[in-house]
Amino acid sequence: MNKYLHKEGKDLWFTEIDRDNLKIDYRIKEVLYSDKSPYQHIMVLDSYDFGKMLVLDGAVQTTSLDGYIYNEMISHVPLSIHPDAKNVLIIGGGDCGVAKEVSKYDDVEKIDMVEIDENVVMASKKYIPEVSGKYLDYRINFIFTDGVAFAKKQPDEQYDIVIVDSPDPVGPAIKLYDEDFYKDVYRILSDDGIMVCQSESPILYEDILTSTYEKISKIFPIARLYTAVVPTYPGGLWGFTLGSKKYLDPRIEVFDKDTSYVNKEILSSCFDLPEFLKQKLRQE
Amino acid sequence: MNKYLHKEGKDLWFTEIDRDNLKIDYRIKEVLYSDKSPYQHIMVLDSYDFGKMLVLDGAVQTTSLDGYIYNEMISHVPLSIHPDAKNVLIIGGGDCGVAKEVSKYDDVEKIDMVEIDENVVMASKKYIPEVSGKYLDYRINFIFTDGVAFAKKQPDEQYDIVIVDSPDPVGPAIKLYDEDFYKDVYRILSDDGIMVCQSESPILYEDILTSTYEKISKIFPIARLYTAVVPTYPGGLWGFTLGSKKYLDPRIEVFDKDTSYVNKEILSSCFDLPEFLKQKLRQE
Repeated sequence: MNKYLHKEGKDLWFTEIDRDNLKIDYRIKEVLYSDKSPYQHIMVLDSYDFGKMLVLDGAVQTTSLDGYIYNEMISHVPLSIHPDAKNVLIIGGGDCGVAKEVSKYDDVEKIDMVEIDENVVMASKKYIPEVSGKYLDYRINFIFTDGVAFAKKQPDEQYDIVIVDSPDPVGPAIKLYDEDFYKDVYRILSDDGIMVCQSESPILYEDILTSTYEKISKIFPIARLYTAVVPTYPGGLWGFTLGSKKYLDPRIEVFDKDTSYVNKEILSSCFDLPEFLKQKLRQE
Repeated sequence: MNKYLHKEGKDLWFTEIDRDNLKIDYRIKEVLYSDKSPYQHIMVLDSYDFGKMLVLDGAVQTTSLDGYIYNEMISHVPLSIHPDAKNVLIIGGGDCGVAKEVSKYDDVEKIDMVEIDENVVMASKKYIPEVSGKYLDYRINFIFTDGVAFAKKQPDEQYDIVIVDSPDPVGPAIKLYDEDFYKDVYRILSDDGIMVCQSESPILYEDILTSTYEKISKIFPIARLYTAVVPTYPGGLWGFTLGSKKYLDPRIEVFDKDTSYVNKEILSSCFDLPEFLKQKLRQE
């Protein structure tokens, strides 16, 4: 047992606390993994309603019920916009779900995956293969180091796509929301490169989303916002910010990947923003 | 205090229990209203993160933070599809948010609102005017009775649009998910009429959504499913089923209502379903 778990009678519950004002309790069948790494507390839980869950420092990161939605949306949108991506960098993404989606593109030659915590990759691969994928693609290079420092050290124009699959902007991850970091991402992207990052809930964290959009708009000639639903993230509606040097729209006529959420229609309608968000971005 | 509320130190919390496996705890500033009606337990709570909440028998129905999303989506989609709706029936919808949205259409002449529990209307009007609207439109007729029995007694072809704004299919509300009820709705709709009902979360309650779609497909020549995000409903992604006798698509070129979620783009992209749902409906 640890501070995130408690018993009620015979039942085991895991409590996620969001911003002191919201707690979500999941009834748990079994604790599959629980350990402290040098970076964080890691758990894999088997829950009744959401299947297996990866939990870092008490926050749900992905589940076998709905993890594919987030991973498909952060991967297939940029990969459908870029006509010829060969080198892809993933920053974060320890559950390996993004790497799994990127691997569906045969033309991609190299996938560098920079994750600070090797233990997250190990636990995900072992306990949540539904999310991480059963096999390791030979094109994936795991680099276990800090993503911000890694980006800073790379030569110019190394990558066609950079996907920033970061946790919430708390603790060390806060550097992944910095303008300086986005400038490095711009620099290491090829002259038609595209970056995408998750931008939290437009309803509960509107300020994070609008400030990310503002920073990326300043650095990239093209900035676009898109949304998807992620049931296990508080707020449900989730924002993604895309910065592009050249290309604008997904080439939806060619989408032929095996997916559960993304399809041709979703690839274009994900850019149709609710009215309150359109108005908010217009004000910026 | 009642069984839905508890104190932790100085803090007041409200706990919503969903299907025994998920509990959501909201930190509460103040209990604005709490009483038992002949039908259910009614509370209006002022919460830290979601503003004011209407809670019936312990389940959150609407909040001032995100209530507009559900109410706009269940109202403006059918009203944008029907070119000339004059008579509208709302079944349920005690928070008055749907009636408020329908009132935005000047050509609508009559809005019959059939809600079983007068106390819900009273509490919503008094404590959550952000959702219910401050003023009562002269076209709204409140009829406090059982919606299923009301539909059964109406003459044929009375309404152009019927909106079923029902709670979850638990207890008495279960009749609002019955094929016999949908047949009555079909009967009381004019020959170009449209009905819409909420169909729960496609992710957590896939069976409710697909069975509703199946029933409406059998009765109406046109059945369509659309989705929206409702952050305070467990599962986040929410389904709506539409049955139409004649008209198919929203006339988005004319959408000019003052809304916070719905706009021209959303009116058409809400019908773009995630791949898993498309495949599920294809199997039915």
